[in-house]
Amino acid sequence: MGSVPPLLLALDLAGTFAFGLNGALTAVRATRLDVVGVVGLGMITALGGGVIRDVILGAVPPATFVDWRYFALAAGGGLLAFGFSRVLDRLEMPITVMDAIGLSTFAVIGASKALAYGLGVGPALLLGVVTGVGGGTMRDVLIGRIPSVLRSDLYAIPAFVAAAITVVATHLDLYGLPAALLAVAACFVIRMLGVHLELNAPGPPRPPDPDPADS
Amino acid sequence: MGSVPPLLLALDLAGTFAFGLNGALTAVRATRLDVVGVVGLGMITALGGGVIRDVILGAVPPATFVDWRYFALAAGGGLLAFGFSRVLDRLEMPITVMDAIGLSTFAVIGASKALAYGLGVGPALLLGVVTGVGGGTMRDVLIGRIPSVLRSDLYAIPAFVAAAITVVATHLDLYGLPAALLAVAACFVIRMLGVHLELNAPGPPRPPDPDPADS
Amino acid sequence: MGSVPPLLLALDLAGTFAFGLNGALTAVRATRLDVVGVVGLGMITALGGGVIRDVILGAVPPATFVDWRYFALAAGGGLLAFGFSRVLDRLEMPITVMDAIGLSTFAVIGASKALAYGLGVGPALLLGVVTGVGGGTMRDVLIGRIPSVLRSDLYAIPAFVAAAITVVATHLDLYGLPAALLAVAACFVIRMLGVHLELNAPGPPRPPDPDPADS
Repeated sequence: MGSVPPLLLALDLAGTFAFGLNGALTAVRATRLDVVGVVGLGMITALGGGVIRDVILGAVPPATFVDWRYFALAAGGGLLAFGFSRVLDRLEMPITVMDAIGLSTFAVIGASKALAYGLGVGPALLLGVVTGVGGGTMRDVLIGRIPSVLRSDLYAIPAFVAAAITVVATHLDLYGLPAALLAVAACFVIRMLGVHLELNAPGPPRPPDPDPADS
Repeated sequence: MGSVPPLLLALDLAGTFAFGLNGALTAVRATRLDVVGVVGLGMITALGGGVIRDVILGAVPPATFVDWRYFALAAGGGLLAFGFSRVLDRLEMPITVMDAIGLSTFAVIGASKALAYGLGVGPALLLGVVTGVGGGTMRDVLIGRIPSVLRSDLYAIPAFVAAAITVVATHLDLYGLPAALLAVAACFVIRMLGVHLELNAPGPPRPPDPDPADS
Repeated sequence: MGSVPPLLLALDLAGTFAFGLNGALTAVRATRLDVVGVVGLGMITALGGGVIRDVILGAVPPATFVDWRYFALAAGGGLLAFGFSRVLDRLEMPITVMDAIGLSTFAVIGASKALAYGLGVGPALLLGVVTGVGGGTMRDVLIGRIPSVLRSDLYAIPAFVAAAITVVATHLDLYGLPAALLAVAACFVIRMLGVHLELNAPGPPRPPDPDPADS
């Protein structure tokens, strides 16, 4: 990932931190865990998607294991979440925004790296999405939840759009920082739209809770 | 997988399509998912076993990511299942037959590829079985089910038999299309036998339910 | 792993056998499985951590697939557990002791191998822990349990301590058999302490059961 432009790198690092923070907070909320469990799940959320991508591409050891900044930000996000989970729970929107930045950047960089390793359109789209959603999916599997990417229709789809813009731009020889930022922005907007729509949606995609008026 | 004979390749591609279709149908039945979730789970079912095999062998990017036919058939099966799940639910037997063809061919090709990469008898047997059952297992884990391979005794065992015939034939220098087809046929027959026996079995392989007559 | 000293190799092989046995016994207790499921889960428990480590390091095919002794001991442990689960259930303490030996040795060898492949301190620590706990975590995910490493605070932490001693010793140029054995011993002692404390703990780390006096 040495050829990633500085702005994209900054977004990628911010996303890694946000994924580490958000992944660890999700773990704290979901089940009783010790510090190793919480920080570990934060790191898996932050680094998992990129590790799957790099293992499939044969780019090992994975970029996130070689570049200490990714590793430190993932661990830092997880530790922060462990120490300040009560405070951070109130900051849901800023964390969701950063998480959407991470999703967007991961999808773009994932698709771009897959193309650079010679993969075709379909596999590059898939690896873009997997880079974006893989870490959170691993976390959800580990804490025994149906992965949120399978339940919420506006998490994988924005990542898919970002990967598709990346792939199209690359095939038109137009890929560069502007195209990458356009792809990131498109994913980000769709994702945030999804978050807002979900907040207003009449019912959650979960089994109905027992009516609280009954008790 | 360039040296796979045309007949085996055709079976392998048919199996990939069947796994994509069947995997996506299972996902539709099990839980509420959007198109990305359904097609994604279909593709994971179809490609997952081969990806695990190739990642372990160091044959990356995996064959199914490099050869567009596997990718297209896996995605096509998933999309078909998403669009026509109600119709396809009625075609259970043809889909089970195609799924059994996929299981058989995947196990044979998996074991054969492991041997070609210099692995011993035990690891080749294991990778043959993993190639056959790995994708469905990943799907089941993602939708929160105990993998069916662990619950149904006639899914892994036929794959094991196919891998064993492949390994024995290779060590006797008899491996070729006839031996491969024999291994595929043996697995297929045992698997279909298992399907029929299961249909007639008196009870499910789960802990006994409380007697309904008690209530 | 050719440069592993004989004593460490012996502990590593003993640990592989214990993980295979213990992993398969856990599977027998947790859910109804056939021989392929039980032995498969035993082998995944025994070999999974090392496979994840080697795939991430690019050291493929993984050491445990190339060296038949690991493979045979993992399969042997699983088969023994399948055949004699009732007898072995009574031998809980010797199996826990052997399992702790495995955890300790796996963490030390995992961290050491990661450093030998040029990874930094953080990734080496992570891979040490993953080598120790990865197999059991894969097993727990497959049988639908929250991984015990996330629930029990004295499983990952001793592995972390062992990996940390390994990393510090290597950076001080003091790594060798004595340092490795010190790291193994530290992990082993903390783990066994954890086992004993857990036995005496007032309540389990799970949501409280409904009061049985109510019914």
